[in-house]
Amino acid sequence: MQRYFISKDNWQDHSLQVLEDDYHHIVHVMRMTIDDQFIGNRYDGQSAVCKIIAISDDAVEAIVIEWLTETTELPISITIAQGLPKGDKWEFILQKGTELGAKHFIPFQSSRSVVKWDSKKLKNKLPRWQKIVKEASEQAHRTKVPTVDSVLSITDIINASCDYDWKFFAYEETTRAYHASKLYDYISKVNKGQSVLVCIGPEGGFSENEASQLKHAGFDAIRLGPRILRTETAPLYVLANLSFYFEEMR
Amino acid sequence: MQRYFISKDNWQDHSLQVLEDDYHHIVHVMRMTIDDQFIGNRYDGQSAVCKIIAISDDAVEAIVIEWLTETTELPISITIAQGLPKGDKWEFILQKGTELGAKHFIPFQSSRSVVKWDSKKLKNKLPRWQKIVKEASEQAHRTKVPTVDSVLSITDIINASCDYDWKFFAYEETTRAYHASKLYDYISKVNKGQSVLVCIGPEGGFSENEASQLKHAGFDAIRLGPRILRTETAPLYVLANLSFYFEEMR
Repeated sequence: MQRYFISKDNWQDHSLQVLEDDYHHIVHVMRMTIDDQFIGNRYDGQSAVCKIIAISDDAVEAIVIEWLTETTELPISITIAQGLPKGDKWEFILQKGTELGAKHFIPFQSSRSVVKWDSKKLKNKLPRWQKIVKEASEQAHRTKVPTVDSVLSITDIINASCDYDWKFFAYEETTRAYHASKLYDYISKVNKGQSVLVCIGPEGGFSENEASQLKHAGFDAIRLGPRILRTETAPLYVLANLSFYFEEMR
Repeated sequence: MQRYFISKDNWQDHSLQVLEDDYHHIVHVMRMTIDDQFIGNRYDGQSAVCKIIAISDDAVEAIVIEWLTETTELPISITIAQGLPKGDKWEFILQKGTELGAKHFIPFQSSRSVVKWDSKKLKNKLPRWQKIVKEASEQAHRTKVPTVDSVLSITDIINASCDYDWKFFAYEETTRAYHASKLYDYISKVNKGQSVLVCIGPEGGFSENEASQLKHAGFDAIRLGPRILRTETAPLYVLANLSFYFEEMR
């Protein structure tokens, strides 16, 4: 069943209004009509089967048929901090990372990032990134939409990292300046309900200086399997494995 | 170190010639010169550190400095059979699936595939697909290049499936026509050295008829975590988890 995230201003106790883009999608793309059903999802994670009772020129009116108890959110809270990659890879990571259960995304300006974002460019990008994670959440049947930060520096990431229970960075075993642990050995120490900050370099990885900063700030160096993954594949590998460990093995 | 797969015709006992695209890459992209080193990889999986001893107008001559013993190949043999998806998603699956360790790829014409390939179109596509998996293998530091089939039918897949130790298809729990097992429960029965055929539907999944055909042919229905993954994310989820289980947990 089609799912829409509806902001809390448009919910009453057992009814809701769908406006703007979602209105357009229901009426013009899905061509739904009176009595058709969809899943309405509040941003706090509560969701319900809803039935359309009226369609006007700019709003779909619906009532709640049944509140749902869904368990599609990963039982740990994962933040992906990613050195800004080239081209459309960041948007790819947002979409696929949302499908795979990430809670929060932070792009950061890494010394090897080819892309540089100024604040003017960013102003347009942030709403687009939020739209990508909202739509990916709807498609993946998630009950919560991940959040996306503006572009930070590695120092910002390090300052923010004290709010997390666990933090590690992806480190290519081939460079060997630090001993990298296996992902399994690391995540087997994490408990449900905890938060994990995963830091991934851009194409070319972290500079020595960045790796050293992260190590000093208490991040562990973790290898992601025996093959060398591209920057945009690395977060998906981590998320898929955390899903496997916390959702499928138990 | 840069890696190149070199066909066996261009290897002698302890020397080799690099021609054509790889010649171009070494000379014009990497701008290597005499005494520079790269990893030469035979298609049988054997690899060596090689040193350039001469560069002519159309060939790089190199000698073997050291034969390598590398373990970057997944210890199980995974084939991804994928209902042809839209746009450039198939090429995306080939690239990312290669990074994540797949051994073989089979695209198939599924009843819900929007894309149709005729034999003329395919003639141009197959060399392109083989180039994608070769380049992705080099980038990922694999020692073997996966193979890619031409487009098959679901009947062809079923006929070929008796050659595999294990076979399953990805099945959305939400549809519930069959009981779908958890991926962990399934792969914990697989042993190293065995072969697994993973069958994934296109956008919209398998038709009822296809799911029924696969069930009758002995394929198990497997769910891929609690969220609904896009067709191009599903094979990456499976491969990342098989890597985690067989390479990182042990």
